Amino acid sequence: MKALVFDGNLSLKDLPVPEPSPNEALVKVLTAGICKTDVEISRGYMDFQGVLGHEFVGTVEQSPDPEQLGERVVGEINAGCGTCSWCKAGMERHCPNRTCLGILGRNGAMAEYLTLPPSNLISVPENLATERAVFAEPLAAALEILEQVHVKPADEVLVIGDGKLGLLVCMVLRLTGCKLLLVGKHPEKLKYFQDLGGSTALLHELADTRDKFDVVVEASGSPGGWKLALDRVKPRGTLVLKSTYHGSLEFNTAPLVIDEITVVGSRCGQLAPALRVMSQGLVDPTPLISGTFLLTEAETAFVKSQEPSSMKVLLKIGS
Amino acid sequence: MKALVFDGNLSLKDLPVPEPSPNEALVKVLTAGICKTDVEISRGYMDFQGVLGHEFVGTVEQSPDPEQLGERVVGEINAGCGTCSWCKAGMERHCPNRTCLGILGRNGAMAEYLTLPPSNLISVPENLATERAVFAEPLAAALEILEQVHVKPADEVLVIGDGKLGLLVCMVLRLTGCKLLLVGKHPEKLKYFQDLGGSTALLHELADTRDKFDVVVEASGSPGGWKLALDRVKPRGTLVLKSTYHGSLEFNTAPLVIDEITVVGSRCGQLAPALRVMSQGLVDPTPLISGTFLLTEAETAFVKSQEPSSMKVLLKIGS
Repeated sequence: MKALVFDGNLSLKDLPVPEPSPNEALVKVLTAGICKTDVEISRGYMDFQGVLGHEFVGTVEQSPDPEQLGERVVGEINAGCGTCSWCKAGMERHCPNRTCLGILGRNGAMAEYLTLPPSNLISVPENLATERAVFAEPLAAALEILEQVHVKPADEVLVIGDGKLGLLVCMVLRLTGCKLLLVGKHPEKLKYFQDLGGSTALLHELADTRDKFDVVVEASGSPGGWKLALDRVKPRGTLVLKSTYHGSLEFNTAPLVIDEITVVGSRCGQLAPALRVMSQGLVDPTPLISGTFLLTEAETAFVKSQEPSSMKVLLKIGS
Repeated sequence: MKALVFDGNLSLKDLPVPEPSPNEALVKVLTAGICKTDVEISRGYMDFQGVLGHEFVGTVEQSPDPEQLGERVVGEINAGCGTCSWCKAGMERHCPNRTCLGILGRNGAMAEYLTLPPSNLISVPENLATERAVFAEPLAAALEILEQVHVKPADEVLVIGDGKLGLLVCMVLRLTGCKLLLVGKHPEKLKYFQDLGGSTALLHELADTRDKFDVVVEASGSPGGWKLALDRVKPRGTLVLKSTYHGSLEFNTAPLVIDEITVVGSRCGQLAPALRVMSQGLVDPTPLISGTFLLTEAETAFVKSQEPSSMKVLLKIGS
């Protein structure tokens, strides 16, 4: 099968179709999404070598669970060891020995086939198009904020960063009815949220105000975003840290204590709620698609995904 | 002006246009909604006598705040005394000396004009039709659940009662991404939620399962609903009590303690989030409109609103 492999260089290779272990399912990949993490892995992040990709929709071809055969599925990307205390508590996503699709110890989704444990797979509702369902993983990461933090209808909320993540976070947080402001640097990206009736501001416009917020979500990935978040969260408010940074941040922690700020780190989420909000038409991330390429064009797709104006780039792999 | 008055009997009367005090605005009523509370008041509930009605959209004709003149508005129905400790803490809705539009000490909205303090009024976004905006007050009451309880995207939630209130609660709670089930007695009313892609069950269908839920909302107003709610909430779960009952309920409180159940009473909510979710198209209650009548037909409208199949009946008053 064809697969996009990173082994120090990024290139399309011919690999054998993976042999699923007795505890795994074999999934034929229909569509995969390129995530910023994939780009960073191709620059050496996580020291991962292998097939890239963790956002996918596929069809189950083999599985120990016969009810899954032929199902169109998305997949939880973390696979726990199944025996440690984390796994036994149902928190496989935090298992210290976990593998992670296309990120850690497990080949990813930018290939004609992948394997995952059957319990990681979840069926896609029939009315949900594959090109929309492929957003389940990043949308789940946005919904994870609402698992962790009680965002209330009357809250004032600031989202920092107008990239894919910031926009998906806005698409989800607006469902709470909260008074939401997205701040970013790019008028053409802020427009995606304006098109939904959302309020936006450029950085310098926010700088002209002294507004503070009950909840601030930092999704810019820049140290300036973290500084802005600290500056704009109300006393007793919550700062949700959705970005990872290169290297470490240096900052004065005293205001956190004095103002009793809660900082919540937030990573991946659960796929079922993401499928629910998409299949009920409450969130439609497809306006964020900047291009769709074939797997044979994957290297071009990676270049495209790194253009400043690019949002989500998809690889159409099987059918 | 014409007004629908309850003074032991319900009838349309001619009253003088109210004179707003210096701290009040005069609002010309465009549309009013008939609520179950109005029907109960007309049967003696709250011992209220005067003009009925607390759900409305109107236009500001006089106000101490000149920016409000000509604005299309909805109104917070509770007006505090402004001097007690509750009011000073911003909780006018709990002021022991409050008046409440069409319910307590203040004439209501089923008239050509009403008065309220200007701080109770909130402008309706231009893109929001009057017949939709008139749902702001009951929708705010549904959203109040999300102010009080952290409903998470992965939660399993049961709503009991397929009347107006239960359906509005479902329209709001589905925005959380939670796994939501509406249970009721009326297939034709459950259909309103099915039409949104929601899951429903008839009472006897739920009785065939042993499913328990993280959050249960009792919105049926019947003692049987309360009993079902107690039976179906998971240990450590939350039971939201949205209904008031005639008389008192007798039940064994031991299971609450043993299973560490939280019971949350929930009443009115804030209008701004309700307007936000409607103007962004996230909630559309207008399918619940069963009829629209003129103020001169108000008595007929009251009869219509009490038909078993009726959901929301509106009075079109001004233009």
